[in-house]
Amino acid sequence: MSLGPYQQLEQEFRRLHAFRGALSLLRWDAAVMMPRGSSDVRGEQLAALETEHHALLTTPKVARLLERAEAGASQLEDWSLANLREMRRQRDHAIATPPSLIARLAKATARAEVFWVEARKANDFKIFAPHLAEVVHLVRDKAALLGQARNLAPYDALVDVFTPGISTADIDTIFKALARKLPSLINEAITVQAAATPLPLTGKFTVGRQRALAVDVLKALGFPFDRGRLDESEHPFTEGVPGDIRVTTRFDVNDPFSGLLGAVHETGHAMYDLGLPVQWRDQPVGRDRGLALEESQSLLFEMTLCRSRAFVKYLRPLLEKHLQVSGPEWSEENLYRHLVRVRRSLIRMDADELTYPAHIMLRYELERKILEGALAVADLPEAWNAGMDQRLGIRPANDVEGCLQDIHWAAGHFGYFPSYALGAVIAAQLYEAMRAARPALVEEIGNGQFGGVMEWLRDNVHGVGARLPVKELIKEATGKPLTAAAYLRYLESKYLETP
Amino acid sequence: MSLGPYQQLEQEFRRLHAFRGALSLLRWDAAVMMPRGSSDVRGEQLAALETEHHALLTTPKVARLLERAEAGASQLEDWSLANLREMRRQRDHAIATPPSLIARLAKATARAEVFWVEARKANDFKIFAPHLAEVVHLVRDKAALLGQARNLAPYDALVDVFTPGISTADIDTIFKALARKLPSLINEAITVQAAATPLPLTGKFTVGRQRALAVDVLKALGFPFDRGRLDESEHPFTEGVPGDIRVTTRFDVNDPFSGLLGAVHETGHAMYDLGLPVQWRDQPVGRDRGLALEESQSLLFEMTLCRSRAFVKYLRPLLEKHLQVSGPEWSEENLYRHLVRVRRSLIRMDADELTYPAHIMLRYELERKILEGALAVADLPEAWNAGMDQRLGIRPANDVEGCLQDIHWAAGHFGYFPSYALGAVIAAQLYEAMRAARPALVEEIGNGQFGGVMEWLRDNVHGVGARLPVKELIKEATGKPLTAAAYLRYLESKYLETP
Repeated sequence: MSLGPYQQLEQEFRRLHAFRGALSLLRWDAAVMMPRGSSDVRGEQLAALETEHHALLTTPKVARLLERAEAGASQLEDWSLANLREMRRQRDHAIATPPSLIARLAKATARAEVFWVEARKANDFKIFAPHLAEVVHLVRDKAALLGQARNLAPYDALVDVFTPGISTADIDTIFKALARKLPSLINEAITVQAAATPLPLTGKFTVGRQRALAVDVLKALGFPFDRGRLDESEHPFTEGVPGDIRVTTRFDVNDPFSGLLGAVHETGHAMYDLGLPVQWRDQPVGRDRGLALEESQSLLFEMTLCRSRAFVKYLRPLLEKHLQVSGPEWSEENLYRHLVRVRRSLIRMDADELTYPAHIMLRYELERKILEGALAVADLPEAWNAGMDQRLGIRPANDVEGCLQDIHWAAGHFGYFPSYALGAVIAAQLYEAMRAARPALVEEIGNGQFGGVMEWLRDNVHGVGARLPVKELIKEATGKPLTAAAYLRYLESKYLETP
Repeated sequence: MSLGPYQQLEQEFRRLHAFRGALSLLRWDAAVMMPRGSSDVRGEQLAALETEHHALLTTPKVARLLERAEAGASQLEDWSLANLREMRRQRDHAIATPPSLIARLAKATARAEVFWVEARKANDFKIFAPHLAEVVHLVRDKAALLGQARNLAPYDALVDVFTPGISTADIDTIFKALARKLPSLINEAITVQAAATPLPLTGKFTVGRQRALAVDVLKALGFPFDRGRLDESEHPFTEGVPGDIRVTTRFDVNDPFSGLLGAVHETGHAMYDLGLPVQWRDQPVGRDRGLALEESQSLLFEMTLCRSRAFVKYLRPLLEKHLQVSGPEWSEENLYRHLVRVRRSLIRMDADELTYPAHIMLRYELERKILEGALAVADLPEAWNAGMDQRLGIRPANDVEGCLQDIHWAAGHFGYFPSYALGAVIAAQLYEAMRAARPALVEEIGNGQFGGVMEWLRDNVHGVGARLPVKELIKEATGKPLTAAAYLRYLESKYLETP
């Protein structure tokens, strides 16, 4: 029996899925297990598999099958139809980014990353500037090609790669609402908190003890250790596929929280991947719905669930057990104050929940201007410093504290930053709907019971896969269009609460 | 500038090399790091990459390039010519084993391995027999196809897959020489050793301490930890590619030697891979010269170097340091007696150096008869038991101690066993030549200096890659044709030495 064109496409994409899984494992290994001297060998393996993946996706055979399947699309049911749409999307992206451009970008970003490191060492943006300019030049080409293929404006096409169905118009609306409210909210929160400075948490907390604590918390969250791993790496990340999912974190013996919260953040990603529809797990429609939604899950776990009074109630006995700590500084109230402390700071990675969006909005404004040519790369440091001053009232003393702090642009990731702030906005809207649907939710969290959270997420977010565009998915899950309203309500009630 | 056909082939095989490296990493991870429940996902990834590897090797494009390159072969220099020959060999093998046959064999061996485990549990060969018969049926097909492609008899073609250039005629000659001498040698060795029973080595040796000991020894041997790893797994193995080589072992807290010797055995493989010609490392001619030569390297390390008086002299202070042991049972003499103890035993994996070849010769005889149809699968247990009785004078009480002990046949590995014994024979011949060339060798080993061994191996074995067939390689390295003579001299002098 010969298969129809759609069924043949499913076979082709099953193979591509296996390639993606292998690539993910190669990356995980490179960051966690690989001997230090072996990156040349791994680079060749990754390049060969990525090239082959691209080649398999762009064969004329796949193009013909897509055309034939689309001609008969009226006979496909809902999920298959969505799957076909995602197949088309993947192929159009691949065709629009030819191997020659990918290779040139890979070379330019590899060089730019080297000079980014050099520039940070010397604290001098000028060392990095010409290499960033070369990356920008190529990203512009890529954005133009992707825009043509997807019928979008160039920068919108880059955003669409990471977060399908979100436009700059959507981002502008949301960011404007945030920009209107956040400055006064930050002021007020800092004033409120000034009345209640937390006691310092001192001590050395060994990696072994912190790891045992993290494993306990991850198990409570539902992380399946028979289908996943927790390891350590320089920066926390999640790799793998549903069925073999791997999270990492980094433990700091002077800080009882950073390693745990890193692991919990990544577990938010992992639980999303694990909750994707099992019967579609090797097809495009069975994948996550892009970076903003991914980040909504990790932030929901790290910021909303874990930096809450209920979670601290659950966590305190575990801290006592694993870290063997006691004393007034380990009271629920004092721990909570540490977890929600607001400070204006220069480094995005260290920023708290409330000041974080300001960092993102600055980058969003600057990267659009750079790509449009409205801001020259050479003028970036001054624009950055002025923007920080305007948004948070603080000014970097040098480029390392300023526009040299993130690797994203060196790596060619433009259109990526907005998803961090969008993720926070989405997380709040999901959490509001979840609480309305489950009145006992906060009490359950206090008891270390996360089954209710997971069930709601699986039903309303994870299990949808890529069947719907982001905005429709959120509307179906929450009953409301995506706006900043729930996020602002969440921040106000959390940070203006009188202690 | 367009590339000639040979240069295009080099490009194609460079890509295939990257695929092989990725496959090796996926297998390593499955045995060492992968969560227990994730084997289904890994199976799909391995199958997809293996299928693609096969497809890339058997494209008409490669066939055309091979024909064109062979037509112009007279213009190629030595190494390129050998590389072209190895390319042809790989492609002929791939063409002769079509994906449909590979898939049927994969299914049959997967099922046979399951029932092999069941049969071992029930101690009943009959449970395994029909599934082994199915594997034998398919291996016969494979042997016939490979034989046609390589112009060899079917069983010779299977041997040729593992050890190119060695025929059953070669094996028969060598095994006959061993069978003539070994029985009396075993008798005499056991008599000699009966006069000097070693004191038992008691104690618990933690994995941490044994690991530190193994790392020290591996470093002395030259294992590059910036380009490789030592991990633990159920059975010791080596995976990876030159540039990222990974060995494993298994530590037993009751046995100070098994984990160390497992690691050293695998380091023999690893050093071979690391010594392959660097400039050809991503080409077929830059690979090892097959299983018998691989095994000659691991056995040279484990048996010849490490089970020697000189090595014990080097090792004893390390045992004291890492395992914190002392007393008369840890004297050099007593340790050496443990390392060379001869006993007639039923299980190949536990056999000592002297009785080991008997286990292999039995399997070689039986697997040839089974493939030729001269022995029915159902009659295997009785033939096995009779063979053990005849060769070693002991008789298995059941199938687990007999023909159910190895997984090789369930896995479809016929033609594989001889390489174990051939490896030992080759190791002895190489070692004899090495000692003649470096008079101070034994003294160096006693001082923990292995640079001389490595230099000789690199010059005469490792660095040759796959440029020569096995027999020519050995003749060039040792000045003599491959025979059992050096091996028998080595065993006699080692095991009949008066204590």
